[in-house]
Amino acid sequence: MKKSLGAHTWALPTPVWLIGSYDKEGKPNVMAAAWGGICCSRPPCIQVSLREATYTHSAITKRNAFTVNIPGEEYWREADYVGVVSGRDTDKFTDCGFTATKSELVDAPLIDECSVNIECRLKKTLNLGLHTMFVGEILDIKADDCVVKDGAIDIQRVKPILFSPPDEEYHSIGSKIADAFQQKTPP
Amino acid sequence: MKKSLGAHTWALPTPVWLIGSYDKEGKPNVMAAAWGGICCSRPPCIQVSLREATYTHSAITKRNAFTVNIPGEEYWREADYVGVVSGRDTDKFTDCGFTATKSELVDAPLIDECSVNIECRLKKTLNLGLHTMFVGEILDIKADDCVVKDGAIDIQRVKPILFSPPDEEYHSIGSKIADAFQQKTPP
Repeated sequence: MKKSLGAHTWALPTPVWLIGSYDKEGKPNVMAAAWGGICCSRPPCIQVSLREATYTHSAITKRNAFTVNIPGEEYWREADYVGVVSGRDTDKFTDCGFTATKSELVDAPLIDECSVNIECRLKKTLNLGLHTMFVGEILDIKADDCVVKDGAIDIQRVKPILFSPPDEEYHSIGSKIADAFQQKTPP
Repeated sequence: MKKSLGAHTWALPTPVWLIGSYDKEGKPNVMAAAWGGICCSRPPCIQVSLREATYTHSAITKRNAFTVNIPGEEYWREADYVGVVSGRDTDKFTDCGFTATKSELVDAPLIDECSVNIECRLKKTLNLGLHTMFVGEILDIKADDCVVKDGAIDIQRVKPILFSPPDEEYHSIGSKIADAFQQKTPP
């Protein structure tokens, strides 16, 4: 029996990504975003959607660039913190003990402590209401050796965090279910 | 030590969502999508990005509506199948034993077997290259009683599937890590 729950942003799962940018003085900043996802394969594109009030919003608009950094679950406190406080008021890299490395491809910082860094050049900006969608073209992915297996990133080594919007909780990933794209006949 | 892996769509995690639509004859169709995410809180919006070649692409363009249905992990074979074959060639609802219920809000079908159904009215269409992004405004969410706890959807009862793009694998969700938005001081 289905129940109507109203109009909410209750999709499952959503990611926990750390968005890296430089402010107008060149200070590296980071915020957490769960409103995001891949949106094109060729060219590879990713969207992250941020409120206009965020410090990162103005940085991306000015620099036309951002990074998407994937924290492992051991960094859930840092991920939570950078989603709660503003880079206008504090240096969140210092607060978290994060190290910023300047991207050689785009005008944005990589977070060394995140095992996966995605370097994005701003491609489109779409104002949808409370949130602005930034579509970035992915120019490169950098990953720690220790999370790479057979030339690709291994999700079980990255251990990304999931965000559950209905109850505002973080969850871990579980185990592998199956390889994709195998079921060519009705199940 | 970080390694450059090239420009890929290797974000983690991505969802496994089943997109419901009606074709031009009114036949319900479903396809799997991992390129998607929430993109605005007010109004609540969700994006799904599909290749123009898909049968669902033409249906959404014509009907200005779609549903996002969240399959539990027990439906991973069905989710895989509807991502592999085209609704041009077969009736995927029948093949999967899925039941279509017409949405009362938008011109698209709900999948009864998915515990969460999100009803979307097409708001924006953005051509990004191989994929077209459809931004839908969420008009309502319907959920099975058995996945609702204290008025909200419980991710541990839904058991959504995750897709890992680098190795094309499905994974389950794990356990709860923590409540969000608690870390107001540096960790």
